[in-house]
Amino acid sequence: MKTRLCLYDTTLRDGQQTQDVQFSTEEKQQIARALDDLGVDYIEGGWPGANPTDNAFFDAAPKTTAKMTAFGMTKRPGMSAQNDDVLAAVLNAGTNSVCIVGKTHEFHVKTALGITLDENLGLLRDSIAHIVASGREALFDAEHFFDGYKANPEYAIACLQTVRDAGARWIVLCDTNGGTLPAEVGRITGEVIAAGIPGESLGIHTHDDTENAVACTLAAVDAGARQIQGTLNGLGERCGNANLTALIPILLLKEPYASTYDIGVSKKALKGLTRTSRMLDEILNRVPKKQAGFVGSSAFAHKAGLHASAILKDPSTYEHVDPALVGNTRIIPMSNQAGQSNLRRRLTEAGLEVPKGDPALGRILEEVKAREAMGYAYDTAQASFELLARDALGQMPNLFEVKRYRVTVERRKNKHNQMVSLSEAVVVVKVDGEKRMSVSDSMDEIGGDRGPVNALAKALAKDLGKYSALIEDMRLVDFKVRITQGGTEAVTRVIIDSEDGQGRRWSTVGVSANIVDASFEALLDAIRWKLVRDTKE
Amino acid sequence: MKTRLCLYDTTLRDGQQTQDVQFSTEEKQQIARALDDLGVDYIEGGWPGANPTDNAFFDAAPKTTAKMTAFGMTKRPGMSAQNDDVLAAVLNAGTNSVCIVGKTHEFHVKTALGITLDENLGLLRDSIAHIVASGREALFDAEHFFDGYKANPEYAIACLQTVRDAGARWIVLCDTNGGTLPAEVGRITGEVIAAGIPGESLGIHTHDDTENAVACTLAAVDAGARQIQGTLNGLGERCGNANLTALIPILLLKEPYASTYDIGVSKKALKGLTRTSRMLDEILNRVPKKQAGFVGSSAFAHKAGLHASAILKDPSTYEHVDPALVGNTRIIPMSNQAGQSNLRRRLTEAGLEVPKGDPALGRILEEVKAREAMGYAYDTAQASFELLARDALGQMPNLFEVKRYRVTVERRKNKHNQMVSLSEAVVVVKVDGEKRMSVSDSMDEIGGDRGPVNALAKALAKDLGKYSALIEDMRLVDFKVRITQGGTEAVTRVIIDSEDGQGRRWSTVGVSANIVDASFEALLDAIRWKLVRDTKE
Repeated sequence: MKTRLCLYDTTLRDGQQTQDVQFSTEEKQQIARALDDLGVDYIEGGWPGANPTDNAFFDAAPKTTAKMTAFGMTKRPGMSAQNDDVLAAVLNAGTNSVCIVGKTHEFHVKTALGITLDENLGLLRDSIAHIVASGREALFDAEHFFDGYKANPEYAIACLQTVRDAGARWIVLCDTNGGTLPAEVGRITGEVIAAGIPGESLGIHTHDDTENAVACTLAAVDAGARQIQGTLNGLGERCGNANLTALIPILLLKEPYASTYDIGVSKKALKGLTRTSRMLDEILNRVPKKQAGFVGSSAFAHKAGLHASAILKDPSTYEHVDPALVGNTRIIPMSNQAGQSNLRRRLTEAGLEVPKGDPALGRILEEVKAREAMGYAYDTAQASFELLARDALGQMPNLFEVKRYRVTVERRKNKHNQMVSLSEAVVVVKVDGEKRMSVSDSMDEIGGDRGPVNALAKALAKDLGKYSALIEDMRLVDFKVRITQGGTEAVTRVIIDSEDGQGRRWSTVGVSANIVDASFEALLDAIRWKLVRDTKE
Repeated sequence: MKTRLCLYDTTLRDGQQTQDVQFSTEEKQQIARALDDLGVDYIEGGWPGANPTDNAFFDAAPKTTAKMTAFGMTKRPGMSAQNDDVLAAVLNAGTNSVCIVGKTHEFHVKTALGITLDENLGLLRDSIAHIVASGREALFDAEHFFDGYKANPEYAIACLQTVRDAGARWIVLCDTNGGTLPAEVGRITGEVIAAGIPGESLGIHTHDDTENAVACTLAAVDAGARQIQGTLNGLGERCGNANLTALIPILLLKEPYASTYDIGVSKKALKGLTRTSRMLDEILNRVPKKQAGFVGSSAFAHKAGLHASAILKDPSTYEHVDPALVGNTRIIPMSNQAGQSNLRRRLTEAGLEVPKGDPALGRILEEVKAREAMGYAYDTAQASFELLARDALGQMPNLFEVKRYRVTVERRKNKHNQMVSLSEAVVVVKVDGEKRMSVSDSMDEIGGDRGPVNALAKALAKDLGKYSALIEDMRLVDFKVRITQGGTEAVTRVIIDSEDGQGRRWSTVGVSANIVDASFEALLDAIRWKLVRDTKE
């Protein structure tokens, strides 16, 4: 019989405290659904009342199997829990679970709150009791617990006993400043349990300031804590929180955890871990961290010659787990034989059968390398990769030719004396020897300017002669931009995702110092891929 | 009396096995000098004979106080140590210290080498004895030691005893596949010492595959190991090696390590740690990892409102060490989570004194929040924040007005029948009641098209009347784009970094569905900020 460990995700709250991270309401919803698919027990959605995004999120929070939780703080001194409007805003979010942070470190009680130690105990008691009385499950985040315990263990424990007696379901030991090392976290967690706070109600919340957040979490679990707080990709204040993207596979795959605990995440859901991690980076428009444990693109890349040759005989020689278990893939450098078999597999996926040893394989590899050095990303843009390979193999049909385009962006006063912008694009193509000229503006249905790329996309799709009917069911569903080279020599990479009526979705890439031209290249590839597929069928 | 812990850096060898990392000889020399300045004991310079870069490095290795060490592997089966040309190449590098890797895991002895367990022991003994006989200090990297010990502890220990008896100065326990967790590393290290391998000759070499490399290293030290192997910024095969950039400040600043051990790195050298870390990223042309422990630019960034206000009273409230000790700096970003006291501090930094309780503070916070919900990011763009605040405070001078602009991007065939693109921008401004019209294209010095934003920037800066002289020393140094809302409703955020002749650097932001317009807004803010500063002074 395995012991149940509970996973509490705070990507949407502490994760949002990452520098430069600012989720939109829609992004929060998308992340909440991904967390629910993964199988975490709690999703901390934000702090109702703290900002408009969090309010909007709770107003229309997605239905999840995970317990949606509102975060807030204990009532303020000098007013009752009932009359504290900050606490009321948290309860008004209507979640069944409510987590509040409060002080347990005497220095912070005196310095930050400016009240007596006893007053703080009263404040903790009343806040938790108020949440419980309103019929909710109460969780308590014991801020600065480890530092507080080191300074005054009796008081820190008294705080925990107070919230326990007031009815808190979970008491979470927070290493708020991230400075406590694993051995100390383990020792203190054990002492807390010995002082009468049962492990079954204890959680652990660590930060990565010494790059030990994962280890500190494991140390607390080893000592008996039963709830783990963390974030996807280790987002969070300063250096981030404990990384659930590492902790989940450790707990599911590594001993002694795998045979001791049940964390409520299935082996099947685990296979979606890499995809979920990349999705979050996609939302944040960040380059995924290559060296991330388990999910990084380098996590199973074998560069050393000795390693690569042994891996071909038996992957367990240099891999501690099978990459497929977390939805990741093994990488063996392009340059060697294994690179070519990899390439052949990708070509087969694209419907291109190339025999082993065909010299075209080497040419394609060289071309991919050269273009990736310029900023292209063929891992993401599978459809552009296919077009490149078809070109190299002489299997690219002659579709249409773009003779020229021109796009104008203008900003000026309208008749109401307001500054408005509008873009206009002209595209000239040649299909079957015949020139076709199309024009479009960038206006959407409600009269808003969607910019030059929008105008260009519409003009390009407007008249492709005999191909026009084939692209009627196609639409642009996502647009991503990244500067792949900083500074004044900035080069832009644009990735465009398209969909069609048959439910296909494909990605294409364009790269240029000119952001409009990079977009145009990706748009063009999107249409070419669709036409290659549909004229073939 | 403190115990001496020895630092062994392998950035130039294992670090070079990071995916996409390939140092030049000059870069290796530069890194070696930086490591020596830091005060590590050993610098593993590479594998002589393995590639031309490593040979060239050892041919002209910089003179260092640290022991320069050549890396290689045990002699191959079927030849004597004296006759193995691979081992000879390592010794020929002429270093006083030589580190060789060998097998200690029976599975690898049988599978990878295809020899008997006893033959492997002979091979270890002969290789170490040969190094010692040639008058060098011998180090032994026990590959796959932890996995080998778990599979066959007697044999793994027998390997270590063999190299100890053959005269190895250091025996390094390697967790080659990175899958061993800290508690197990600690337990096994203790058992190795109990089996007669003295802690004074034991080293630890871990990898970050479970994001526990730092913790595993500390666990081995706790158990008695006395040499630490790692790399700067945690470079290395797959997920990287133990990160010395985190381990060094932990060992120097955190208890129980600080008062127990001497690691040979001075407090003064520690102040250069952040600079050394950034220098390595500079060499690798990587964006430094913001959330890195101690040295990351977010490591002392306090975004949560509650944290930011407490930090203003006493930094120790939310910092586990003083950032100045590692040469890093504190950041209090402006964001929708920050409170009024943080806002006032930011305003003071911008030269705007606003009394506590001034209603303008609330207005500014609301404006910041509302605009951040639209996609603006004032954490990063502090100059745009200042302009917004000045507007709200009625302290924004009337500089110039943009009446309209128009930018055209064209792609067509040139006279050589090549497709080329070019952008052209027209900007009309009003300065002191007078209209001024400027035009520019997007061509750089070598005739390349830098795109519409470049044309627009040049046209805007071309003629601002009496202000033109003030912006002459200003230049755009970085340009970042991200889509803040995905899908077809994509909204673009542009951040522009500018510099001037006085060495000031500032960041501005623009947001729009129209990527060109977002860029224009950021450009405009960049000029306005510069003019506000320079007309005020």
